[in-house]
Amino acid sequence: MSDLIYKAKKVKEASKKLMNLSENEKNKALSCISQKILEKMDFILQENQKDMENAISKGIKGALLDRLKLTEDRIKQICKGIEDVIKLPDPVGEVISMWKRPNGLVIGQKRVPIGAIGIIYEARPNVTVDAAVLCLKAGNSVLLRGGSEAINSNIALVKTMKEGLIEAGIEEGSIEIVEDTSRETAVAMMKLNEYLDLLIPRGGANLIKTVVQNATVPVIETGVGNCHVFVDESADFEMAKRIVVNAKTQRPGVCNAAEKLIVHKNIAESFLPMIVKELMSKGVEIRGCSKTVEICKQNGIEVKEATEDDWYTEYLDLIMGVKVVDSVEEAIEHINKYGSKHSEAIVTRDYFNAQKFLDYVDAAAVYVNASTRFTDGFEFGFGAEIGISTQKLHARGPMGLKELTTIKYIIYGSGQVRE
Amino acid sequence: MSDLIYKAKKVKEASKKLMNLSENEKNKALSCISQKILEKMDFILQENQKDMENAISKGIKGALLDRLKLTEDRIKQICKGIEDVIKLPDPVGEVISMWKRPNGLVIGQKRVPIGAIGIIYEARPNVTVDAAVLCLKAGNSVLLRGGSEAINSNIALVKTMKEGLIEAGIEEGSIEIVEDTSRETAVAMMKLNEYLDLLIPRGGANLIKTVVQNATVPVIETGVGNCHVFVDESADFEMAKRIVVNAKTQRPGVCNAAEKLIVHKNIAESFLPMIVKELMSKGVEIRGCSKTVEICKQNGIEVKEATEDDWYTEYLDLIMGVKVVDSVEEAIEHINKYGSKHSEAIVTRDYFNAQKFLDYVDAAAVYVNASTRFTDGFEFGFGAEIGISTQKLHARGPMGLKELTTIKYIIYGSGQVRE
Repeated sequence: MSDLIYKAKKVKEASKKLMNLSENEKNKALSCISQKILEKMDFILQENQKDMENAISKGIKGALLDRLKLTEDRIKQICKGIEDVIKLPDPVGEVISMWKRPNGLVIGQKRVPIGAIGIIYEARPNVTVDAAVLCLKAGNSVLLRGGSEAINSNIALVKTMKEGLIEAGIEEGSIEIVEDTSRETAVAMMKLNEYLDLLIPRGGANLIKTVVQNATVPVIETGVGNCHVFVDESADFEMAKRIVVNAKTQRPGVCNAAEKLIVHKNIAESFLPMIVKELMSKGVEIRGCSKTVEICKQNGIEVKEATEDDWYTEYLDLIMGVKVVDSVEEAIEHINKYGSKHSEAIVTRDYFNAQKFLDYVDAAAVYVNASTRFTDGFEFGFGAEIGISTQKLHARGPMGLKELTTIKYIIYGSGQVRE
Repeated sequence: MSDLIYKAKKVKEASKKLMNLSENEKNKALSCISQKILEKMDFILQENQKDMENAISKGIKGALLDRLKLTEDRIKQICKGIEDVIKLPDPVGEVISMWKRPNGLVIGQKRVPIGAIGIIYEARPNVTVDAAVLCLKAGNSVLLRGGSEAINSNIALVKTMKEGLIEAGIEEGSIEIVEDTSRETAVAMMKLNEYLDLLIPRGGANLIKTVVQNATVPVIETGVGNCHVFVDESADFEMAKRIVVNAKTQRPGVCNAAEKLIVHKNIAESFLPMIVKELMSKGVEIRGCSKTVEICKQNGIEVKEATEDDWYTEYLDLIMGVKVVDSVEEAIEHINKYGSKHSEAIVTRDYFNAQKFLDYVDAAAVYVNASTRFTDGFEFGFGAEIGISTQKLHARGPMGLKELTTIKYIIYGSGQVRE
């Protein structure tokens, strides 16, 4: 715990120095970080090997184990990511607008760093570098708290990044990692209002929930995606099939993958058996509403019935809930009730239904005739992403460098006082 | 408590209807509200009288009692405020930017209401109408929780506003008030993530702190202002005097009034006695650092010594802490340590010190050669104000209608899927 406070203080102090660094200074630091990581490749791989061995001995395997693993290629990929961030324009210092008041005061709205940012995340060690580098480019210091599985890799990466900072002549306290991965320390970190300006949790629904419930530091919720594709009665069946299959199966483990399919009743008998067969042929387990189960049965397809819980669930797996609705209004109501306000899509030829869906679905990203899989900082053209916000304050949807800044009013006077 | 949940649900439901109202529909509702308040003047005054009698019997007097009091003139003023909000442009629906991606997806960033907003505030009944009207104009529903002293006035005002809503054909659940003013119910309201999208506390430091400590609903902190004026060695003395006196005395009970004066050591012996005498002649009590006390003593002025606590305190009264510093850097450090990140001013002729102050002071509004008293939605030209944010997420400084909105990505596709 004393380690937490010590580091939080260092991060806060460093944030004051970072606030006004030039773009050149920050890019130099990023470049030094990238070089150091390449230089210290063997050390990082060796520390990662410890995490891998611990994980294997705990019985972790498959995708989870793979997420933890670093290789020479993966580390090169991480450094390639840093080079990409270097190329992005620095958002800090932009004066978004400036106006003159009748009394002669000149008021400007200037983009400035947020300050000290806490990131609480789960297994993948690449997040350690990604998050630190994005925070740094936007002039923020960062206090990282990764999962216990990756702790040796994370400590090694932070140690290496610090060497890069020192080489660039930047405060090494700009990047710190909490080495104690206990839950108590994580909860204590969530209450460090004195030192942290913002907390971003990155991970599964339980992590996000824990942070929202415990944090007194302002939080940006990210990532939980219970996303829907609604196929309207006027949809082009081929397009609908392509979009549903892509949204569900192209990468089922990510937050912008679709978890639910909603089908208009007027096309259910023709469209449903086709899409369900197609999804099943791709290995997708279907959980249907009673109508879906019935229609499938009539077509000789056995489908499991969905429970109330299913409609709320983000599977992150090859499972899809399927529901038949009477109207676009019912689809919207269902989505607003059960969805996680992430990404929602309608497939339709109808102008008014498209507009209604865009206007009334309450989510970060609402699509007409496209896959939900595009909700992503890179796909949106931001060049980077620290997470996808599913809440409404400060940032919504993919968060790039701009979302890691705030504004400050700068006011130029010539002796004005208030009458 | 069941009343709280019942009303929170109503507010959430209403927010869905408000989301897509046209500007004309919202303005009509505001107009009906204003008319109803004028019509029901006697009823409102009579309910206010009950609050006044209760307050007097509890020994409340002076400024606090005056804040509670409604008069025919004050109610007319409230309605004038509504007319002003009607004239403001509706921020909702603006597409801030729209771009086309290489794959043909057209991505737009559209301004939308936040949803259901909770406002927790203290005594003044005019906030009940102000807050409700601003939320409504920006397409949000509102759950109000005012102080117990004004409960009869608040209930009467909300009842009257609801009559206006009904006349305009708008969901009456758009404006609700929590009638139980117990602390337990307030704390329960702070955890209603299911129904509230945002919580704005308006009031003293203790209220804000309670909300930050207890809320799980996202909060925008407002209002606490421990503001400083730094008089640099190169300052024009006359200008400095005018600004310090204005910032301290023009309206000492508000958050953008200055609480602290910082003076460069090189001018302390000449400037300090002059400004201290001037402030004292206006009834200001001075609490100085040891140097201030000493210099004043040499000039035959008795000044109380400030404690460490003083530097953190927002007096909201005719009291001013005074500190002598060695440099602009020390002034900035002091402000960043003890300030509340509200409004900070430097009086200087020096270009580099002005820029340094603007760059390194971490506050919502940073002034060169002007009084801190200008941090205000009206003075900034926003035409309205729901509060002044002293935190960094979502909104910073005076919050107008725009700050009561969020964005939503709307994406127009033609069948795109992710490769």
